[in-house]
Amino acid sequence: MSDVRIDDLPVRDELRGKSPYGAPQLDVPVRLNTNENPYPLPDPLVERIAERVREAARHLNRYPDRDAVELRTRLAEYLTKTSGYEVGPANVWAANGSNEVIQQLLQTFGGPGRTAMGFEPSYSMHGLISRGTGTGWISGPRGDDFTIDLEAAEKAIVEYRPDVVFITTPNNPTGNAVSRETVLALYEAAQSAKPSMVVVDEAYIEFSHGDSLLSLIEGRPNLVVSRTMSKAFGAAGLRLGYLAAHPAVVDAVQLVRLPYHLSAVTQATALAALEHTDTLLGYVEQLKAERDRLVEELRAIGYEVTESDANFVQFGRFDDAHEVWQKILDRGVLVRDNGVPGWLRVTAGTPAENDAFLDAVRDLQCFVGNTPTPSKEQSA
Amino acid sequence: MSDVRIDDLPVRDELRGKSPYGAPQLDVPVRLNTNENPYPLPDPLVERIAERVREAARHLNRYPDRDAVELRTRLAEYLTKTSGYEVGPANVWAANGSNEVIQQLLQTFGGPGRTAMGFEPSYSMHGLISRGTGTGWISGPRGDDFTIDLEAAEKAIVEYRPDVVFITTPNNPTGNAVSRETVLALYEAAQSAKPSMVVVDEAYIEFSHGDSLLSLIEGRPNLVVSRTMSKAFGAAGLRLGYLAAHPAVVDAVQLVRLPYHLSAVTQATALAALEHTDTLLGYVEQLKAERDRLVEELRAIGYEVTESDANFVQFGRFDDAHEVWQKILDRGVLVRDNGVPGWLRVTAGTPAENDAFLDAVRDLQCFVGNTPTPSKEQSA
Repeated sequence: MSDVRIDDLPVRDELRGKSPYGAPQLDVPVRLNTNENPYPLPDPLVERIAERVREAARHLNRYPDRDAVELRTRLAEYLTKTSGYEVGPANVWAANGSNEVIQQLLQTFGGPGRTAMGFEPSYSMHGLISRGTGTGWISGPRGDDFTIDLEAAEKAIVEYRPDVVFITTPNNPTGNAVSRETVLALYEAAQSAKPSMVVVDEAYIEFSHGDSLLSLIEGRPNLVVSRTMSKAFGAAGLRLGYLAAHPAVVDAVQLVRLPYHLSAVTQATALAALEHTDTLLGYVEQLKAERDRLVEELRAIGYEVTESDANFVQFGRFDDAHEVWQKILDRGVLVRDNGVPGWLRVTAGTPAENDAFLDAVRDLQCFVGNTPTPSKEQSA
Repeated sequence: MSDVRIDDLPVRDELRGKSPYGAPQLDVPVRLNTNENPYPLPDPLVERIAERVREAARHLNRYPDRDAVELRTRLAEYLTKTSGYEVGPANVWAANGSNEVIQQLLQTFGGPGRTAMGFEPSYSMHGLISRGTGTGWISGPRGDDFTIDLEAAEKAIVEYRPDVVFITTPNNPTGNAVSRETVLALYEAAQSAKPSMVVVDEAYIEFSHGDSLLSLIEGRPNLVVSRTMSKAFGAAGLRLGYLAAHPAVVDAVQLVRLPYHLSAVTQATALAALEHTDTLLGYVEQLKAERDRLVEELRAIGYEVTESDANFVQFGRFDDAHEVWQKILDRGVLVRDNGVPGWLRVTAGTPAENDAFLDAVRDLQCFVGNTPTPSKEQSA
């Protein structure tokens, strides 16, 4: 049967010739490529997960709580505690990773005949899930320093009138945060021509120097904040994403969610992790310090570094970033080439992992020396 | 903020006025409404799940195996062992419930500008997920006895030329199976005008008197068999669906799957359950015997019953099925009103649960007496 290939099947035309999304999963001593938290869950939490899953497994023959009420209640408490803005379970919705949250939002507010916009480079799944849901994708502008140029961004929104606008803060893969004022101005722009949804993707917010924009949902029913337990909670393997918004948004996504989408074991594991929030946020503080050290040392070596409010750092510039990526990999350290010309991204790991990375890139100083003076366009 | 409702948001037009899909989750002594397996997982399996999840939790800070290779290998072994037709991991794909499998198939082979057809009444999520993915839905015909009228079905396929055809066997909610010959003829019809995908939904196949149609994938790259661990494996809470098909189909759905869609805890739990296949299939034999008893006793009471190859039974007929549903509920037994006029569906539970159900419906014989003679159309 091996002679049949994807393009021999009646797949959608836009899928022909495409490859699946995903970073290479390579077996390398130091993996700093997918913004994972390097700290394994503490033993008491591992035990608590086993305990809660054992309990859930006793009823596994039954469908899970379709509305995940206990989990949404605990997530709401976490958001209230960490942001100071009070939200309840009616404001919160959870799914299998923030990717599924985004997919549900696009099925509800995007889809065929509609468009979504993000300011690129940004989290590439926004565009990919838009295409996967039949939503037209519009690549909005970002400045040469990777900040959002408010005037250009507002102009793009007014011109293209997207139905959904993504604002990632801190931004991935560049690391920099978007100010509250900019988000507010973009929200207003997105409401000016027609009402549009604005999705503020705060996957990395716990690592930020600044505050969450969660309180912006007050009085703004077309604004959604999306979050994940993959990063700050050190639970990438759990696939638990969530959103906070006006209760009407939570009601609306339930029109498109697959029934019983969130398994009983996922709910049980997430609930266990939420019992250990204080410990996990302690790791976050360590990672923020390591992130700041990476920025500082990379600059001391001579690299250009984008300001970072996340658990990763974008550094450059390189004539051929992919060649540098390979040379770092040859030294046993896996970083990420996100396809941003001239730049690579490294995740903040443990101190030892970061030392290994810094040693590897010190060896490559020759490349920095070979980097041409930034072109006029880039330095403008 | 409570004054804003769904329809005040910029949701897609086709979602306005809609309600979320899902059976009522009521707290009732005997729940026979969602085709769950009534037998809790055996204690050794519960312990094994806790053990495997504990191990997975130690690495939960890392993303899960994106391709779920170990799980797909074990699922392939299960299929080979139970069907006698050899499949390998390259033939198998898994997702969060068969609903997500179906969603991925529709994103790959359906979607905007394309159509899907099912023979209704059947599993209503086929149509709902079609709509959720922008795929036009065509309700194909089914005979008055709820079998597929081959001639009418072929005619509908040739006339409407759907891109995806769903064949549910055993069918839900009616319970009856579709013959191998009928599936083959429908596959040929679906290839005649243009190549179309045929999805054979075997969610309930382990309860069937007949065999799986798995071997039909040999030499038919446009045929997919979908399965679930929700029913025979007694793991509705796990949300683990899977498919078997030509490897090119598995490659193709990876173009639309959300990366890392299947959590490490889901994979660990499913792997544990697959170690206990023999025990779980023992429960299936008990349920098949109970299902046959339900058919027999319902007929003895005087009800009409559709032939069942599943873990549920469709019975009728009623002037007002919903009123009967309520009367059975008043007696502490929750069955399902799937909206098939004149009929209700009851899941085979434990012997005690089935006795409670049979006692409840014996009380309602008066309704049977009140049932009008089937109309000419229905009895044709």
